[in-house]
Amino acid sequence: MACIGTDQELTALARRTREELLEQMEDRLRAFLRAEHELWAEVNERAVGAVAALTDLVAAGGKRIRPAFCIAGYLAAGGDPDDTAVVAAAAALEMLHASALIHDDVIDASSHRRGRPTVHARHSALHDRNAWQGESRRYGEGVAILVGDLALVYSEQLMAAAPPAVLPVWGTLRSELMIGQYMDMTAAAEFLVDPRLSRWIALAKSGHYTIHRPLVVGASAAGRADLAPAFAKYGEAVGEAFQLRDDLLDAFGDFAHTGKPAGLDFSQHKMTLLLSWAMQRDARIHSLITEPGHTPDEVRRRLVDTGVPDDVEKHIAGLVEQGCEAIADVPIDPVWRTELTTMATQAAYRTT
Amino acid sequence: MACIGTDQELTALARRTREELLEQMEDRLRAFLRAEHELWAEVNERAVGAVAALTDLVAAGGKRIRPAFCIAGYLAAGGDPDDTAVVAAAAALEMLHASALIHDDVIDASSHRRGRPTVHARHSALHDRNAWQGESRRYGEGVAILVGDLALVYSEQLMAAAPPAVLPVWGTLRSELMIGQYMDMTAAAEFLVDPRLSRWIALAKSGHYTIHRPLVVGASAAGRADLAPAFAKYGEAVGEAFQLRDDLLDAFGDFAHTGKPAGLDFSQHKMTLLLSWAMQRDARIHSLITEPGHTPDEVRRRLVDTGVPDDVEKHIAGLVEQGCEAIADVPIDPVWRTELTTMATQAAYRTT
Repeated sequence: MACIGTDQELTALARRTREELLEQMEDRLRAFLRAEHELWAEVNERAVGAVAALTDLVAAGGKRIRPAFCIAGYLAAGGDPDDTAVVAAAAALEMLHASALIHDDVIDASSHRRGRPTVHARHSALHDRNAWQGESRRYGEGVAILVGDLALVYSEQLMAAAPPAVLPVWGTLRSELMIGQYMDMTAAAEFLVDPRLSRWIALAKSGHYTIHRPLVVGASAAGRADLAPAFAKYGEAVGEAFQLRDDLLDAFGDFAHTGKPAGLDFSQHKMTLLLSWAMQRDARIHSLITEPGHTPDEVRRRLVDTGVPDDVEKHIAGLVEQGCEAIADVPIDPVWRTELTTMATQAAYRTT
Repeated sequence: MACIGTDQELTALARRTREELLEQMEDRLRAFLRAEHELWAEVNERAVGAVAALTDLVAAGGKRIRPAFCIAGYLAAGGDPDDTAVVAAAAALEMLHASALIHDDVIDASSHRRGRPTVHARHSALHDRNAWQGESRRYGEGVAILVGDLALVYSEQLMAAAPPAVLPVWGTLRSELMIGQYMDMTAAAEFLVDPRLSRWIALAKSGHYTIHRPLVVGASAAGRADLAPAFAKYGEAVGEAFQLRDDLLDAFGDFAHTGKPAGLDFSQHKMTLLLSWAMQRDARIHSLITEPGHTPDEVRRRLVDTGVPDDVEKHIAGLVEQGCEAIADVPIDPVWRTELTTMATQAAYRTT
């Protein structure tokens, strides 16, 4: 490789390229939603409400972690930074995620997302205020179902501008997401202490959906589907670390940082990997969660006593190492190996 | 055109070709769902529940009216009956419809569909029976949201095998469906007597989604997007007739024929075209529906007294005529003009 700068300069340049493409992804999302808003405003003024609700959520920010991994996968695979096809793919991933969040918030009865009331909560309140016909809850949730469906359709329309080579992994990513969410729900309902099942769900929901598949979407857009096996190993390990951090943030984080209420996993009986491990050590946690009259603080104290949160921290560190090892020998520019290592650490040690 | 048989023989032949392609569409749906079932059964035995719920709904039948119009549009446009690309498009339309029905039944709190309990009703009951954690209603509706999402994703995967020429109309068809449903919900909540709005919603939900766009999907698959304007006129008229029949069946039909409970529009405060016309003539119908203590039979009697049902019948007849006129001069084989005329009558005068 021709050396045109120090390693540090090259890494900074790589990151700038990634950030520029991420900016383009934001522009693409904004332009797409603006065009849809204008289109429907012309058709019927009432129609724009659905597009506006979606625009609000997308504009409220978020980590944009899936587009970030998609663009990193593309650039690591040697994709041309001036070709905007990957921008379309990254925007499609973020739009799909908006759909998943809107529907997930209905399923989990969550009140807030990205620091604002969720789509269904806002529309239920609107129904209440206006004393409209029917049940407020049903109205709010109905609007959220349709706005989420619209986002799912839009994600497809955005992806139509990406290279056809991404279609197989795009198909898998989406059905895997739905099935993973379904299994998460059934496991919560039955509240089964089964760390193998909890781990499988964590892998489906985060390992694959958040990191592994977005990386492969990017690599495929650059014509490098051969990187898929290494990206799978990296993504599964870093994704599990990401999900474990999510479990810890839900249990011990606070609203000011995460933009969503803490302790939701407890109240929704989510059988997270964190909780299933803790319950294997201390069966009383099960009843603290399922029986009425216990506060989230009691659950938290008991969780700490099991020693599981500390062990989870060690496990996260091991997973990050494992993820980085998985890409140690893949044929990509070393600058991108460094960048993916940094991204693994950021995903595993995020505070929001 | 070379005459190789009587008009009647040619029409019968055309219909047989259409029915054969519809059969292939059923096979495609079955094969796709079987493959997904097998795939997920290997991954995790719990995962198949979502696919099984969807398969049950698809296997329970239904009118298959969207695939039928898609295939008719394709053959009318001179599409090769031996090319199976249109089969994929027709299967995608039916899979999208399964998704719409599953989500619509949650939004409308419907108990039955195609003669069986709806996806959410069945899963709420399962949750109840097993005394699982959390709320039964939320669980059943959560499962239905995810199964509907899965069907939406599957519809896309099926459509990927259709000619790329169908993509623009496929995109419009889907966002229009979601926005139409959204407007239907908001109009029901506000219960506005506004026949113009009700008519717009009927056009979006049935004119476009059920007839016009499926016809254009078929015509585009055959490379004849030039037929779109005539098919739009035909589809809008026949679709409005189809929706008015739906309104009448909901108001006056019975479960044994339709497979869904009668009077749902009343209890859900659906501002159908039928009801908005009737309320313009007799404002008391509004309070019969919105105030407690009135039976559906009271609403029915009052509706008949307004004379609106009879006028709707006349309007339906006019719409069928208007639809048929719209294709009187389009450059298609006269056999298909006859067949589309028959289909218009069937859609407008169906009993289920």
